[in-house]
Amino acid sequence: MKQSKLFTKTRKSISADETSKNAQLLIRAGFVHKEMAGVYTFLPLGLRVIEKIKDIIREELNNIGAFELKMTTLQQKDIWEKTDRWDEKKVDDWFRTNLKNGAELGLAFTHEEPLTNIMKNYILSYKDLPVYAYQFQTKFRNELRAKSGIMRGREFIMKDLYDFSLNKEEHDKFYEKMKSVYMKIFNRVGIGDKTYLTMSSGGSFSKYSFEFQTISNAGEDVILYDKDKKIAINKDDYSEEIFIDFNLKKEELKFREAKSIEVGDIYTLGEKYSKALGLTYKDKKGRERVVYMGSYGIGIPRLMGTVVEIFNDEKGIIWPESVAPFKAHLLSLNQNEKAEELYKKLEQAGIEVLYDDRDARPGEKFADADLIGIPYRIIISAKTLKENSVELKKRDSDEVEMVKIDELINKLKVKK
Amino acid sequence: MKQSKLFTKTRKSISADETSKNAQLLIRAGFVHKEMAGVYTFLPLGLRVIEKIKDIIREELNNIGAFELKMTTLQQKDIWEKTDRWDEKKVDDWFRTNLKNGAELGLAFTHEEPLTNIMKNYILSYKDLPVYAYQFQTKFRNELRAKSGIMRGREFIMKDLYDFSLNKEEHDKFYEKMKSVYMKIFNRVGIGDKTYLTMSSGGSFSKYSFEFQTISNAGEDVILYDKDKKIAINKDDYSEEIFIDFNLKKEELKFREAKSIEVGDIYTLGEKYSKALGLTYKDKKGRERVVYMGSYGIGIPRLMGTVVEIFNDEKGIIWPESVAPFKAHLLSLNQNEKAEELYKKLEQAGIEVLYDDRDARPGEKFADADLIGIPYRIIISAKTLKENSVELKKRDSDEVEMVKIDELINKLKVKK
Repeated sequence: MKQSKLFTKTRKSISADETSKNAQLLIRAGFVHKEMAGVYTFLPLGLRVIEKIKDIIREELNNIGAFELKMTTLQQKDIWEKTDRWDEKKVDDWFRTNLKNGAELGLAFTHEEPLTNIMKNYILSYKDLPVYAYQFQTKFRNELRAKSGIMRGREFIMKDLYDFSLNKEEHDKFYEKMKSVYMKIFNRVGIGDKTYLTMSSGGSFSKYSFEFQTISNAGEDVILYDKDKKIAINKDDYSEEIFIDFNLKKEELKFREAKSIEVGDIYTLGEKYSKALGLTYKDKKGRERVVYMGSYGIGIPRLMGTVVEIFNDEKGIIWPESVAPFKAHLLSLNQNEKAEELYKKLEQAGIEVLYDDRDARPGEKFADADLIGIPYRIIISAKTLKENSVELKKRDSDEVEMVKIDELINKLKVKK
Repeated sequence: MKQSKLFTKTRKSISADETSKNAQLLIRAGFVHKEMAGVYTFLPLGLRVIEKIKDIIREELNNIGAFELKMTTLQQKDIWEKTDRWDEKKVDDWFRTNLKNGAELGLAFTHEEPLTNIMKNYILSYKDLPVYAYQFQTKFRNELRAKSGIMRGREFIMKDLYDFSLNKEEHDKFYEKMKSVYMKIFNRVGIGDKTYLTMSSGGSFSKYSFEFQTISNAGEDVILYDKDKKIAINKDDYSEEIFIDFNLKKEELKFREAKSIEVGDIYTLGEKYSKALGLTYKDKKGRERVVYMGSYGIGIPRLMGTVVEIFNDEKGIIWPESVAPFKAHLLSLNQNEKAEELYKKLEQAGIEVLYDDRDARPGEKFADADLIGIPYRIIISAKTLKENSVELKKRDSDEVEMVKIDELINKLKVKK
C-alpha cells in the first residue's frame, strides 16, 4: 500500500477527552476514529489489524470443527423473555429500538437465545450432536461509562462461539479443549506470556468459570497469579474454598497481585437456555433429552487494544508480526524510483508492505514509522544504494543492519 | 466441508409467511434463517456466498485505489442535523435508540455524514485528493413492509463507497469509471447479461443519476430497455426530456418493458454533505474550496437474492461458479472410504468441496444437491469405481460424464 494514497495521516495531538493509552496511540497513528465514547470507526490500518486477529481465531476454530455463521443485531423480545433476559432489571445494558408498527426490538448484546432458537430446526436427534458454531458479529452494550478506549465498547465486534453437546461430559471435554485453543490464540496474537487462565465465579450456571486475564496496568480487573505454575484467581472471587475445590496446595503457590484485562471468557451454560427455549433431542433409546451448552467469547477490539497497551514505547505502537497491519514499512528517502521497484518485488513475493513514497522529510517518515509500529522498517536512500543495500531495523530493536537488496526478500521471509 | 458435520439440513417445507422465492429456496436449502421480516441470519452456506460476493467487490474496488474501512452503526444526531437528515419528516426509515443518559442515537441507514466528518481530519489540501473509501457495513432501515426475502432488509450488509474529489470534473471521471467497475462486478457475479445501466431521476443533487437494474419478475421496479443497445430508463422517470438530455434518437430505440431489481446505485452528491459539514480544502493558490462527492452502493444480500431469483429451477438453486458456496459437491453412494480419499485430494488441490458423507439414501443426496445448487456434482459409487471413475454433472445441465479419478482435478481446474 502506498502511503501517499492512504488517506489517513498521523496526528501529533488528539482530543483531551481520550484518556486511554490504546485509543490515544491508535487515533494518533490513524488506526481508528472515535465516534463517541466506546464507539470507534476502524480506518484502513485498523481494519487490517482486526482482520488479522479474526483470521487467526477463524483458523483455530475451523481446525476444531466449528462452523462460522452470522446472526442479526435486531432481536424480537419473545425468545429473550423465555430466558428472562429481556427485562431491564435483569439485563441493564440493552439498547432498545422500535419497528414502525411500534413493536419493541433489542440490539443483541450476545446471541445465546437466537442461536439456541435456530438450532431447534437442526438438532433433533443425538446423531446431530455435538454442534460448534461461531460468528464475528457486532455486539451492542449500553455501558454507563466507556473510558477504556477500544477495550470497552458500546458497539464492538465479538467472536462468540457456542457448543451444543449431548450432555455435561461431552461439553466438559470441549470446554477443556477450548482452554487450550484460547491459549493458542493468545500466544499467536503475541500476549501469551502475560495471559493467565483465571478461575472466577461461575455466575448462575456453574460454581466456577474461567476467564483469560492479561496482565496490564490498563486492566479493570485484578488477579492473583503464580507466574511459574501459570495459575491465577480473579481477586474478586478469591476464597479459601477455591483451594479445596481445585485441589490446590496454598503453601505451594506464590501469588502476586496485578491489574489485568479480561481478554476472553468461557462459560458452561448447562441447560439454562436449551431448557427455556425447548432445544431437545431424542437419545438412542428415543427419550427426549435437553441439549447441554457452553459459550466462549473474545472481544476483537479489546484484544487489539490489549496488544497496544502491552506493546508500545514513547514513540508509538510496536505490533507483533502476527497482527501487524503490514510486515514491512519501506521508507524511501528521495529514492522513489528504486524504492518503487523494490516495493513491487516485495509485493510480488507476498510480503505485505506499507510504502512511504510521500514527499516528506526523513525525520517525519521515521517518526511516523515508529508511531504506526510495523515490525520491519526498511530504509532506501542514496547512502544505502551505494552498497546496493537497504537499511533494515526491527521496530522493537535499536540495531540496524545493511542488507543487500537481492537478499532482502529471503531475509524477510525467514524472519519470524 | 463434510456434510455430516454441517449442522444445517435441507427442509421440505417452511413457514407460509415467507412468500418470496429467494428466501424460500435459501431457507429450505439451509443458507439463511429468518429472524423477522427483513432480518436474516446467514448460516454457514449462506455466509460463504456473502463472502464470495464481498471478495469479488473488494478486489475490483482495491484495483481502482479505494481503501476499505469500517464505520459504526451508532450515530449521534449532531452531524445528521447539519445535513437535515435527522428529522423523521425528512428521513422516515431511522431506527432510534438511546444511551443510558438519555441521549438520542440513530442506527446508520447510510454513512455519508460520518465519513465526511472523518475526512475533515485528513483532507486539508488539494494534495490530499481524491480519496476513495468504502466499507462492508450493516445498514439498518426501518422499512414499513419487508416482503422481498433477503432482497429488502431492515438489517443488511451493504457495500458503500464514497468519492471525495477536487471538483465536478474529477468526480465525473470517477463516476464514469464506476459505471464500468459496477458492470464488471455484475458480470463476475453472473448477472451481467440481465443487468442494465438505467437512467433515473437524480434526486436532490443532480438532474439524473444511474442505477443498475437486473431484469427479474421478483423486481419492485419497472424499466424500459433496449436489449441490443444496452440502454434502459426507469419507467418512473421516463420523459421526453431524457432523449434530448442524453442525445438519444427515440426512433432508433426498441424499448421493451420488464420488472427489474435495483442491484446498485451510483449518486453524484456534489457539495451537499461537504458544505453542510465543512469539508473543505486549500487549492494550489491557497483558496478554500468545497470537496465534491459521490456515493456508490450495492446491497450484498440483495445481490445474493437476485442471483437466486434468476438462477433456479423446480429442484432448487443453480449457483454461478463465482459465488457458489463450493465449487463441487461430492456425493458418496456407500463408498465413503474411496470418497474420503478423493475429498482430501480435491481439498489439497485447492478445490472447494462439500462432501456428502452422510448415511442417507441416494435419492435424498441427489435432491439435496439439486436444492443446494453447487455447480459440479461428483458421484462416487460401486458402479463408477469399477471404471476407476466418478460421474460428473453440472447443476445446470442434464449431461453426465464418466471421468477417471486421476483426471478429475485437472478437469475441474480447467472448467470455468
